[in-house]
Amino acid sequence: MLLTQGVVDIVKNEYTVKEKLFEKDGVEVFDSGYFGKILVANNQALYCEHDSAMRHEILAHTAMCSHEEPQRVLVVDGGDGAVVAELLKHKEITIDVIERNASMVEAAKCFGCYDKALEDARVNVTIGDTVAFLGEAKEESYDIVIINRCDEAYLNDKAVMAHVNRILTEKGLVVMDASSQLFDMAGHKEVLAALGEEFKIVMPFRYSSMVRVGGEQWFALGSKFFHPTADVNLQRADLTDGFTWYNSDVHVAQFALPTATFNLLKEYIKR
Amino acid sequence: MLLTQGVVDIVKNEYTVKEKLFEKDGVEVFDSGYFGKILVANNQALYCEHDSAMRHEILAHTAMCSHEEPQRVLVVDGGDGAVVAELLKHKEITIDVIERNASMVEAAKCFGCYDKALEDARVNVTIGDTVAFLGEAKEESYDIVIINRCDEAYLNDKAVMAHVNRILTEKGLVVMDASSQLFDMAGHKEVLAALGEEFKIVMPFRYSSMVRVGGEQWFALGSKFFHPTADVNLQRADLTDGFTWYNSDVHVAQFALPTATFNLLKEYIKR
Repeated sequence: MLLTQGVVDIVKNEYTVKEKLFEKDGVEVFDSGYFGKILVANNQALYCEHDSAMRHEILAHTAMCSHEEPQRVLVVDGGDGAVVAELLKHKEITIDVIERNASMVEAAKCFGCYDKALEDARVNVTIGDTVAFLGEAKEESYDIVIINRCDEAYLNDKAVMAHVNRILTEKGLVVMDASSQLFDMAGHKEVLAALGEEFKIVMPFRYSSMVRVGGEQWFALGSKFFHPTADVNLQRADLTDGFTWYNSDVHVAQFALPTATFNLLKEYIKR
Repeated sequence: MLLTQGVVDIVKNEYTVKEKLFEKDGVEVFDSGYFGKILVANNQALYCEHDSAMRHEILAHTAMCSHEEPQRVLVVDGGDGAVVAELLKHKEITIDVIERNASMVEAAKCFGCYDKALEDARVNVTIGDTVAFLGEAKEESYDIVIINRCDEAYLNDKAVMAHVNRILTEKGLVVMDASSQLFDMAGHKEVLAALGEEFKIVMPFRYSSMVRVGGEQWFALGSKFFHPTADVNLQRADLTDGFTWYNSDVHVAQFALPTATFNLLKEYIKR
């Protein structure tokens, strides 16, 4: 008896058809059949073609539509281009990308669209050390910082959050991956605690993944001014072209917390 | 590389510790360690102790809190007692259960609480044929019908929905499992279409599962009068004792549909 027999059956099928399209510096792209192409870093599946919208629309547009007039965005670990492709659906924007692994930019070419997003005139890509980049960035350079981390642990410390706070404008906000509430509540709390040191509003929000642990995944938002459910820009959320997953209903819904989860997190949440 | 490596790693561990506590007539209970006890029917995991609240609170209380004054409830395939245990958190209620497999009632004893729910004075359990029971039930006997199906296909026909319509009061509503929007959209549409033949309001809503396909699972609601997001009874939703997962925020949030999903389903949804 398989606990997740449906998923496992699909995965078994994938084993027989998978093909490796790319491999370099710990970054891999597989063609999986059912799930489409899958981006993998350090043996961890980040996303597949089928759930890319579920992850990247939620990550990008929740931030963009919680802010009144976002113009300057930094994407940390954005070298795969998927978040950038979403951000470019908003016209009035400039995007800086810092990426620690140049192979991620190469891997993006396998998906056939994300690499073009990185080449857009509104986008500036830097390959280098993430923490050094944050340290050198000027005060109040960005309206939004998006931390697109595959490794939930590597940026989770007070120094990085202090830099993010410093380089954000006075109404700026940050969004980032947070560990699973179902499978790693301790890691989830650590992310919220790190945000809580620097930001007035701290709230987790969920998205669905087909290739990561347990289906339900979590991001966290830290904000200096705008409230993500009270200040959602309905016009931008519902009238921007090109959304397949995100809308204003989903925006608000993804912040709803189960009763027991809220009780476990209430000392970490600021809303 | 495993597509769902986190889940699969956990499942692998379970294989080494699993113990079969019950087996009869296609019903099994396993003690899995990480997921707690798991109820299985016909080789399909229905729920585990860890996600029972995620499934049964959503199934029971979404119906109960969408209705103004629910008193008489029928649970089809309710012999495991898990939905009944949730319904009993509402005091003014009588519950009929129809169960086609007597072994399900025996299996409930493994969980140590669901069997006691079935023995409550407000509960009347009938072991027998589901469709015959529905056919013999009187007009307007129930405020709510809950169809707790493990097999999404077996009740999905117009005749059964017509019976459910007939035995519901003029403000009655029904909730039932619907196939996955991610993995079986055709099956999902069939459930909505069957409800649409009989009910004025037809809306799908999601819940999380740790042991079923893909994490994200779906129910569907059919209603003659009350609207599940406009008419939610906030007092009952937020002030009833004993909820660990459900609350009024979650109630509304679970009905939010992604943009592309809504477009795929808009001819089936009535809201």
